[in-house]
Amino acid sequence: MRRLINDGYDVVEEMLGGYTKAHSDYVRLDPNDNRVIISNMMSDEPRVRIIFGGGTGHEPLFMGYVGKNGADAAVVGNVNTSPSPEPILNAAKAIDSGKGCLYLFGNYSGDILNFEMGIELVKDEGIAADYVAIKDDIASSDNYDRRRGVAGDILVFKAAAAAAAKGLSLEEVKKVAEKANRNTFSMGVALSSSTLPVTGKPTFHMEPGDMEIGMGLHGEPGIERKPLVSANEVVDEMIEHIFSRTDLAKGDEVCVLVNGLGGLPLMDQYICFNRISQVLENRGLSVEKAMVGNYATSMDMVGMSITLMRMDEELSEYINYRINTPYLRN
Amino acid sequence: MRRLINDGYDVVEEMLGGYTKAHSDYVRLDPNDNRVIISNMMSDEPRVRIIFGGGTGHEPLFMGYVGKNGADAAVVGNVNTSPSPEPILNAAKAIDSGKGCLYLFGNYSGDILNFEMGIELVKDEGIAADYVAIKDDIASSDNYDRRRGVAGDILVFKAAAAAAAKGLSLEEVKKVAEKANRNTFSMGVALSSSTLPVTGKPTFHMEPGDMEIGMGLHGEPGIERKPLVSANEVVDEMIEHIFSRTDLAKGDEVCVLVNGLGGLPLMDQYICFNRISQVLENRGLSVEKAMVGNYATSMDMVGMSITLMRMDEELSEYINYRINTPYLRN
Repeated sequence: MRRLINDGYDVVEEMLGGYTKAHSDYVRLDPNDNRVIISNMMSDEPRVRIIFGGGTGHEPLFMGYVGKNGADAAVVGNVNTSPSPEPILNAAKAIDSGKGCLYLFGNYSGDILNFEMGIELVKDEGIAADYVAIKDDIASSDNYDRRRGVAGDILVFKAAAAAAAKGLSLEEVKKVAEKANRNTFSMGVALSSSTLPVTGKPTFHMEPGDMEIGMGLHGEPGIERKPLVSANEVVDEMIEHIFSRTDLAKGDEVCVLVNGLGGLPLMDQYICFNRISQVLENRGLSVEKAMVGNYATSMDMVGMSITLMRMDEELSEYINYRINTPYLRN
Repeated sequence: MRRLINDGYDVVEEMLGGYTKAHSDYVRLDPNDNRVIISNMMSDEPRVRIIFGGGTGHEPLFMGYVGKNGADAAVVGNVNTSPSPEPILNAAKAIDSGKGCLYLFGNYSGDILNFEMGIELVKDEGIAADYVAIKDDIASSDNYDRRRGVAGDILVFKAAAAAAAKGLSLEEVKKVAEKANRNTFSMGVALSSSTLPVTGKPTFHMEPGDMEIGMGLHGEPGIERKPLVSANEVVDEMIEHIFSRTDLAKGDEVCVLVNGLGGLPLMDQYICFNRISQVLENRGLSVEKAMVGNYATSMDMVGMSITLMRMDEELSEYINYRINTPYLRN
């Protein structure tokens, strides 16, 4: 194992302990629930509260995006595991301002189950609540409703958080998130597995020199495993997949997110972005905004994903809306 | 190899191409020199210009810190190789505002040689110039003047850039950088080598399950190689080394930087910070500021370093001074 941890069962508590101490200006732990990270920068005005959550092992997702005009709380589970309904409830109880809470999480069966149960409990408390499950991983299904959520989480969340910050209603914020969701498309490539803290072992075996295009954020099977080729060839193939599975077209303006999965050097990520920007230009699209870095990782997995969000005036306003969190700032 | 690159000889140009396209609001390439990254956010007032540089392969160092109240230019070489005197000269020619340029780089013999030659050429052009070689790696020598520069580069640079932004003279900015340098102490630990782009091979061999405390940012030998222990034990040993080699003491206020070397999950970095903050508290020091993340990497090396900077009112003002660059913001 090449990890710096203590007991594999303690990683979440110790990580959150470190995180909330390092960023005590931004966040605190809910005194009633050590899986709920609460913003210290919430609006004094009543606002729809944004609660972003899911399993851990994807840092800085989700905790890293709690802050001003970002998430008002994050609720997290064990590594690669949905939070249970109790912290999902506790988050809303801790932060609701009377305008309700919108939960955002990746579209996984465990998350759907737990968040739906948690949201029922929230409603039982008389707090309005709803959710949007993020579905950007176009490698995972041709059917939109079956798609998983990967790095596009960040962009869909960003749009929703900005809409909430502007003072929109719960229904309106949900509509913005759904629009962002429909216009956000991701495709990943993995060159290695991540290492699970409890076992100290990789989740699956991958030969050095192999790659798997389309692999999910937890190692879900992709489209094809084959020998690694050059960065430009990998990018070209991924972009081809994205265009063949979406209606992105010439003339579209896009936000591009190159997301490192944890173990891929920033050098390589910018080399990939260099090619992506060329390929998009050749296809007649314009890059309105670019983000490159480790936004949604799988711990030490070597790989990256490309996310393209089709922008219009409304989404552009939200994506560029002022935000101040430890891992996302405009 | 688990890297996403094209020809290993093209990595620097392709990375800088991607970087300057992704962050065109912050930076541009010098049209006369493709190893010089220039800020688009330089002060309109005449100010001492800060030029931060060294070899590539440490991203986001150095390019990631060019921006408002940060570096006014970065000058970079090949992977793990000092820039040559020509781009060092070209950076000053492109940005000097009449108040001179201060160069900041890590204390390596190749960098000293090239920057000194470059600075002579700058002076020949009638531009005032000086430098501070950063010497924070206390594992590399007990003699301050022989210490290498590692992640403490960020803090020393940050202090100097703030002093320049405030309008101090070249001599005064240098004095601030030297004071920061004297008060900044780092110690690293590596669990793997990085992978060199040209060869596709690790720089050196390290068995999975081993660690080397004190290893440098390019894989320079550390204090001891031995079997990996728990994160808390690793942190305790590193902190013990730091205190035994410096005059840090009870009552000191410090800025703590936990720097990921590239392949270590953010989860692990916060677990380490969780322990560091406990250990410092037990020793009677207070943490005035904390930074955790991949600030100065060795590409895909798995490992991290701990940097402690002793703060006083002056250094605190500079470290907390407003800055806006892609990879460092206050």
